[in-house]
Amino acid sequence: MNTAKFDVLTIGNAIVDIISSTEDDFLVEEKIIKGAMNLIDADRAEHLYSVMGPAIETSGGSAGNTAVGVASLGGNAAYVGKICDDHLGKIFTHDIRASGVSYDTRPLEQEPPTARSFIFVTPDGERSMNTYLGACMELGPGDVEEDKIAASAITYFEGYLWDPPRAKDAIRRAAEIAHANGRQTAITLSDPFCVDRFRGEFLQLMRSGTVDIIFSNEMEILSLYETSSFQSAIDAVRDDCALAAITRSEKGSLAVSRELTVEIEAHPIEKLVDSTGAGDLYAAGFLYGLTHDLELIDCARLGGLAAAEVIQHIGPRPQTSLNQLMIQEGY
Amino acid sequence: MNTAKFDVLTIGNAIVDIISSTEDDFLVEEKIIKGAMNLIDADRAEHLYSVMGPAIETSGGSAGNTAVGVASLGGNAAYVGKICDDHLGKIFTHDIRASGVSYDTRPLEQEPPTARSFIFVTPDGERSMNTYLGACMELGPGDVEEDKIAASAITYFEGYLWDPPRAKDAIRRAAEIAHANGRQTAITLSDPFCVDRFRGEFLQLMRSGTVDIIFSNEMEILSLYETSSFQSAIDAVRDDCALAAITRSEKGSLAVSRELTVEIEAHPIEKLVDSTGAGDLYAAGFLYGLTHDLELIDCARLGGLAAAEVIQHIGPRPQTSLNQLMIQEGY
Repeated sequence: MNTAKFDVLTIGNAIVDIISSTEDDFLVEEKIIKGAMNLIDADRAEHLYSVMGPAIETSGGSAGNTAVGVASLGGNAAYVGKICDDHLGKIFTHDIRASGVSYDTRPLEQEPPTARSFIFVTPDGERSMNTYLGACMELGPGDVEEDKIAASAITYFEGYLWDPPRAKDAIRRAAEIAHANGRQTAITLSDPFCVDRFRGEFLQLMRSGTVDIIFSNEMEILSLYETSSFQSAIDAVRDDCALAAITRSEKGSLAVSRELTVEIEAHPIEKLVDSTGAGDLYAAGFLYGLTHDLELIDCARLGGLAAAEVIQHIGPRPQTSLNQLMIQEGY
Repeated sequence: MNTAKFDVLTIGNAIVDIISSTEDDFLVEEKIIKGAMNLIDADRAEHLYSVMGPAIETSGGSAGNTAVGVASLGGNAAYVGKICDDHLGKIFTHDIRASGVSYDTRPLEQEPPTARSFIFVTPDGERSMNTYLGACMELGPGDVEEDKIAASAITYFEGYLWDPPRAKDAIRRAAEIAHANGRQTAITLSDPFCVDRFRGEFLQLMRSGTVDIIFSNEMEILSLYETSSFQSAIDAVRDDCALAAITRSEKGSLAVSRELTVEIEAHPIEKLVDSTGAGDLYAAGFLYGLTHDLELIDCARLGGLAAAEVIQHIGPRPQTSLNQLMIQEGY
């Protein structure tokens, strides 16, 4: 067991999800890239809400979901992300704190409003996100809480943070603090289009040792190395990073270290309802395992267990205690 | 098939639900009456949110859920209920309109804010509601849209509307308009404690013919007649009302007319997740059947089908097309 105050601190875009079911035709009509995170402006946000079906509101944001997952597993988690002091901001703050996550980022007092993502879930369970970043655009180095980073075994952040203008500076600062305190850092590649926007910078983060661990799905790692060969991508990432956790949806996942590759099957589910949060919760389970000295195979298994819970209901955060599920599975 | 423009118009408290899972101990600690609708003031609302776990926001309100259910089944539905022009009000308006329900009640421009209900769901699937009525307190006769009532085969309203001061005047006005146009009226008794608060008035509505149809669960009908004998209550309601639909949770439901009692079993479910909206969706299915000239037994069956959908996920409104479910069941 690590002796840090927090097992995991995550940094990301603080977002409230507005989730609705739809058919594939709608995505085509509205020119929404299926399965991706589409960035939108305020006008597009208004338009999409006007044509969206009845929705459910729930706190989201990739790294926020991961922090909540770590807490639900029984770990100590902290979060950094920017909201506005408006109604959605209050919902976001309530939910993450009520989940047991330490969260103290100073909110904006005025515009832009708290970020929201209009998420359309198709009958196949795939989610297509349309994110208005709002207040997240204002995250900067001043939001990095040095004491919390120093006290966290792993600081984890989103590739999505390369979209806002100054968040990457916050990340570089956070990584410096973490490493100066003998801690580790991790990044999720977030989305294949995000990788495409920032490929060079992500590779540089890995090769320079700014990040120690990467989380990626199959599409993202293929995009990162601009290859169609999964094996080539695995070989490449082994050289570039101390540890990579690669998810492959229903095909399970891999953990790849310098010396070792472990591969596990996906955790069985009854029905895929909404894949929102799958990668985020996989990361939560994996990070919980890493910070509790589990073997890589068990880190990957816990990731699969947490992801399986979240994809069987609408919404990106667990609706049951992951700690209880973990205990039922014999951990 | 009726020739009315709307099959069903419902009138009720327009509420956004804030739903969280909890243990029974929490209800005891917070002195929340389990399974009931507890009315709360603004201070209590603030307190309950501060101690509530992470939550999901979704439009609710008993009669609003029923209108959405009718629309989801493929019927024409309209709704009357009071919101404030604030963030939650915008969510409520979006969701009900996006569900295909006609909704034009003029919102309040200022305080009080849109109503919210803090709903705690215990592991047995039971929901315990804590409702701050806010803007609903301002619903009055001026909100009754005469043209829509006149054009609705059935006008349906909540017993809950006896809590706000002037809503009952709106209801009496709506019933006059409905009957003057040869239409029918229906009431749901809403909650056993609500029945206890307004027993005399509810009985008078039935005995005077102000309402033609009542919806009730077992607890409510027992409370109405202050009896512990279900059979006595059934005998009494047959004298007092042209038609009663009585739900009994996992024991199924009954339709009781002057001449006839039909009884059906509950629709099978895999797992009870959250009972919020069960009665509302039962009413939706039953009313859809009535307005589409189905036999009473099929009205009850459709009620059970719609209720079964809504109790298998968190939230009080259908997450799948009830029309498709209905077709799958051979209707």
